[in-house]
Amino acid sequence: MPECLFCKIIAGEIPSYKVYEDADTLAFLDINPNNYGHTLVIPKDHFENIYTTPDETLCKTMIVVRKLATAIRNGMEADGINVTINNEPAAGQVVDHLHIHIIPRHEGDWETKSQHLKYKDDQAIETIEKIKAALQ
Amino acid sequence: MPECLFCKIIAGEIPSYKVYEDADTLAFLDINPNNYGHTLVIPKDHFENIYTTPDETLCKTMIVVRKLATAIRNGMEADGINVTINNEPAAGQVVDHLHIHIIPRHEGDWETKSQHLKYKDDQAIETIEKIKAALQ
Repeated sequence: MPECLFCKIIAGEIPSYKVYEDADTLAFLDINPNNYGHTLVIPKDHFENIYTTPDETLCKTMIVVRKLATAIRNGMEADGINVTINNEPAAGQVVDHLHIHIIPRHEGDWETKSQHLKYKDDQAIETIEKIKAALQ
Repeated sequence: MPECLFCKIIAGEIPSYKVYEDADTLAFLDINPNNYGHTLVIPKDHFENIYTTPDETLCKTMIVVRKLATAIRNGMEADGINVTINNEPAAGQVVDHLHIHIIPRHEGDWETKSQHLKYKDDQAIETIEKIKAALQ
């Protein structure tokens, strides 16, 4: 799948701010986060969306999601976490490679849930360091 | 957990529009759906949120979510599916029993994604029949 953006990130052809990696799974910062610390978790094998993802892949990916949800909550000092999977463009899917969003929430920011932020200077590196420290 | 609304639904003390049930998992219509067919999938064991849900329970629940996502897409003639897990009140969690939302989306309705609808007359029963037929 050389034309898949996320397969290129997995292959290292496109850089990303990696939060976590193992043999089957990769997690990296969303570059237009709804909140700082917003992370995408993807299986390294290419499946378009949840409909076609095999049991084993789905399970491995979700176990990583759970670990990272806790680490992002703690590392970003958040008050809650949204986990979302958008399937097909009508549901907001932009890249056709299954990805699970983990979005930290803070008290009172629910109204701004669809905002898109940018990281400045070293802020993305500081963010992944906070999450990695909480993942220990 | 007699005070948990979803444990009461599992126990049959509170009625629900059941979409799917097996030994470990229950799925029923959200009574204030974002779109018709909006379904909640829950493990029968009580866990507050994704942070504390064991691997095996998370996997079993997500496999049901995947099957139902496809059935809801087809049964409701939707164009996409959002799968969401809200953890803690700051992230929109209202009932403290892990539940996974499956929300059908139709082309162009993304802007109305936070609406809350009501079912009228036999509409809820017709809806679960459509989903169950697509689940075969």
